[in-house]
Amino acid sequence: MTDIQIEGAGTMKAGKILCLLRSYKAHAEEMGNTPSKKPDFFIKPSTSIIFNDENIIIPSASKEVHHEVELAVLIGKRGKDIPASQAMQYVRGYGILIDVTARDIQSRAKKMGKPWAIAKGFDTFAPVSDFVLKERIEDPHDLEIWLRVNGEIRQRSNTSKLLFKIPEIIEFISSKMTLEPGDIIATGTPEGVSEILPGDVVEAWIDDIGMLRVGVE
Amino acid sequence: MTDIQIEGAGTMKAGKILCLLRSYKAHAEEMGNTPSKKPDFFIKPSTSIIFNDENIIIPSASKEVHHEVELAVLIGKRGKDIPASQAMQYVRGYGILIDVTARDIQSRAKKMGKPWAIAKGFDTFAPVSDFVLKERIEDPHDLEIWLRVNGEIRQRSNTSKLLFKIPEIIEFISSKMTLEPGDIIATGTPEGVSEILPGDVVEAWIDDIGMLRVGVE
Repeated sequence: MTDIQIEGAGTMKAGKILCLLRSYKAHAEEMGNTPSKKPDFFIKPSTSIIFNDENIIIPSASKEVHHEVELAVLIGKRGKDIPASQAMQYVRGYGILIDVTARDIQSRAKKMGKPWAIAKGFDTFAPVSDFVLKERIEDPHDLEIWLRVNGEIRQRSNTSKLLFKIPEIIEFISSKMTLEPGDIIATGTPEGVSEILPGDVVEAWIDDIGMLRVGVE
Repeated sequence: MTDIQIEGAGTMKAGKILCLLRSYKAHAEEMGNTPSKKPDFFIKPSTSIIFNDENIIIPSASKEVHHEVELAVLIGKRGKDIPASQAMQYVRGYGILIDVTARDIQSRAKKMGKPWAIAKGFDTFAPVSDFVLKERIEDPHDLEIWLRVNGEIRQRSNTSKLLFKIPEIIEFISSKMTLEPGDIIATGTPEGVSEILPGDVVEAWIDDIGMLRVGVE
């Protein structure tokens, strides 16, 4: 059920999902936050994954659920304390991940200094696209990224605006915890996050990777 | 490497680890927090697991690492929206988990409303004991629980002081995310958390489950 599809290269069982925060300046600012000075991240469980043509389910516990489109990096090899200079050897491919967020629950957690696990971890809160092998992507730091809801563009940016390069992100995360094959690093979202509602159709795009399309119920 | 041992019943591959917070009144108060009114939790990755006779490694990123001893519940069956009345069918067994915490990193995160993933998720930050089948435990809500460091008792309580019963915890968590076989719910820690240092020997005990002993380096 949580097998990541890699175009032309089979599947991988999804591991942990590590999601960066405040890694695009304009998104950090729209949320009233300062951008991260070094990568910081939270964990989404693999049980939150859904795929193309499935539905995000708005949980009864939340009254405000947001989309956040992100470039996702699929790890192909186990590693700890990986230097940035070798980090790309640990990358299997790239995909699109929508970091669905119960914004009201997250806001309360932030105010009280509590963890983000519930706000970020509901079932269906991590739609992912098929992944493409890294060799297919010339420069992951120069890709148009956008998301539209019911045909209307809500988020549009370029991965060149990421505050951290992928090797640096891998070095940082792997200095804290072992990365394993199937782990996914979601690199954070650009500006334009907004609410999704039952009946919406959400489409996300990243150049050279393709499209991810999910519904909302 | 992350196969949970179950006494007399083989092994299970560890899944996600869901850890309750502020679920013992006296610990919530010693941290200056109010106890949780309903279960709240964070996620530790399975890469943080170590076993008996292994070592907690104090990461260079932290100057203050704490022990938190907890009763751990091993999930045996996949489920979502599990009613409390059926929750015990999803329990495979019980064990001891030490929720190792980089307190300085967690305190900074709390102050800034940021996630707890780094503070809680370092490799070696989840020592677990062998588990015992649930049938071996007459009442999981009446077990002495203690932890000592270098022979000195630091934490001592009884699971009767848990603010939530296990069926209620399972109902709550599974209303947010699917539980899978091998998932571990750590039910939170009683009072007495304190610092551990390289060279320390940490021993944790829960009645009818047994002992967990790890070093620190």
